[in-house]
Amino acid sequence: MGRATDRRTVLRIDISDSGAGMRASVRRQDSLAAEEPLEIRAGVVGPGRRPPLAVTMRTPGHDLDLAIGFLLTEGLIRSAEDVVTAQLCAGAETPNTYNVVDVVLADDVPAPQVDPARNFYTTSSCGVCGKASIEAVRTRSRYDVAADPLTVPAAVLAALPDRLRAAQRGFDRTGGLHAAGLFTADGELVILREDVGRHNAVDKVIGWAARERRLPLRGQVLLVSGRASFELTQKAWMAGLPVLAAVSAPSTLAADLAEEAGVTLVGFLRGSTMNVYTAPARVTV
Amino acid sequence: MGRATDRRTVLRIDISDSGAGMRASVRRQDSLAAEEPLEIRAGVVGPGRRPPLAVTMRTPGHDLDLAIGFLLTEGLIRSAEDVVTAQLCAGAETPNTYNVVDVVLADDVPAPQVDPARNFYTTSSCGVCGKASIEAVRTRSRYDVAADPLTVPAAVLAALPDRLRAAQRGFDRTGGLHAAGLFTADGELVILREDVGRHNAVDKVIGWAARERRLPLRGQVLLVSGRASFELTQKAWMAGLPVLAAVSAPSTLAADLAEEAGVTLVGFLRGSTMNVYTAPARVTV
Repeated sequence: MGRATDRRTVLRIDISDSGAGMRASVRRQDSLAAEEPLEIRAGVVGPGRRPPLAVTMRTPGHDLDLAIGFLLTEGLIRSAEDVVTAQLCAGAETPNTYNVVDVVLADDVPAPQVDPARNFYTTSSCGVCGKASIEAVRTRSRYDVAADPLTVPAAVLAALPDRLRAAQRGFDRTGGLHAAGLFTADGELVILREDVGRHNAVDKVIGWAARERRLPLRGQVLLVSGRASFELTQKAWMAGLPVLAAVSAPSTLAADLAEEAGVTLVGFLRGSTMNVYTAPARVTV
Repeated sequence: MGRATDRRTVLRIDISDSGAGMRASVRRQDSLAAEEPLEIRAGVVGPGRRPPLAVTMRTPGHDLDLAIGFLLTEGLIRSAEDVVTAQLCAGAETPNTYNVVDVVLADDVPAPQVDPARNFYTTSSCGVCGKASIEAVRTRSRYDVAADPLTVPAAVLAALPDRLRAAQRGFDRTGGLHAAGLFTADGELVILREDVGRHNAVDKVIGWAARERRLPLRGQVLLVSGRASFELTQKAWMAGLPVLAAVSAPSTLAADLAEEAGVTLVGFLRGSTMNVYTAPARVTV
């Protein structure tokens, strides 16, 4: 359990070698990013099993943080105080794969609504248009991110991708792990998490912060290694983050949600350049 | 409706300009990849609404292909003959956002099981370990991909990423759209689809093929612009594709599922090099 990478035999082919008398293909061992399903169950104490809410394909490790980050960014809990216990538990299989997290919620937490006619993820985008999705998040977030007085020099932001990359142990081995890094306003790395799914990496960071009683994450910056989607922007808002930065492109709905939230959304953060899509006053030049 | 990109005002910052007397930041219009929720409903003809099965965050366009590709790769339909009608229909909102696809299934198609205690996606990874997930896909796929006699020269594969990239109109404008391209064994592009989600781009390709009565996609190659996950490998197997190639890294579970299916999984397809993770006999050097 808990291995972020695993080895497989691969055939490495280089067609440019063919003419040079070298072997064009060799068999070798390579490290791959581990991917396994994680089932998240949550409910109150009592007889009977707590219902499964979601299965996410994730890289094993920091699974309790992932589960708590997921519950929090979906608006099912308000803080770590809403969780009585969270544990990796045995599924049906032998040997135990530790691919189930069971979360016991406090008595006063409303039971998660598992609508029989809708899958769980419809709570993230429960309208049938983008505006309804944005409205749904606005209703759920506890934090007034727009009021966060943080300013960050552009030069500090520009330095973050190299720091994230330098701390990514799993990416170096596999080339297949996304990362989410939480930084202070001075550009110091607070915590980094890696996962095959960017949304899982972000949930692991936010779940860690919730368990450490660090929410809201005001005055801080979250950097993700890939693109910025609606879902990642939602998670940033739910955690009270004033700045979400991405190495690659955002989507329209990510920009629209960030605008609504007052989250500063930075994209294409590469080298000396960046695009600021929303709340640009926080970035000083 | 149907726009793959949309424009937003951004602040472009270049800190390297500061010393050269140029303006360090300019406001300009940029194109972003469009992201909107799409609700997929499916059921038989009759009174009452067909139940929503899933909401996916996708780039508008080719939504009927997306819905049919999704139903097919999830094993809910066997072919396009199982679909009586599929149409973009009005949701509750005004004006109509065309973010709902309603699919009428033939009478003899088993009703999709919407388990009240589980979300829809658990059918993709319905075990709580990776082995159970692989077994679930194996049970559902109609096609013996392992028996496909296709061979492809490595040089043909090496040429595909440039062809995919050249055909990606949306990526050029936004930098934020994934692509899936279907190619013949000679490297000719059959069809390309773009989306903010790779899995949606693949569903759009496979749904198109289903509607064109081209399944199974034997003797052909699917190339995706990013990484290869369990989910994408499942879709390739369900469509009868013998080769799945990715520009970036695969995960362990993608490789394990491809091994079980007899799908040739190629990763890190860049320049003159590539890694072949499974069924390497199909790639000739």
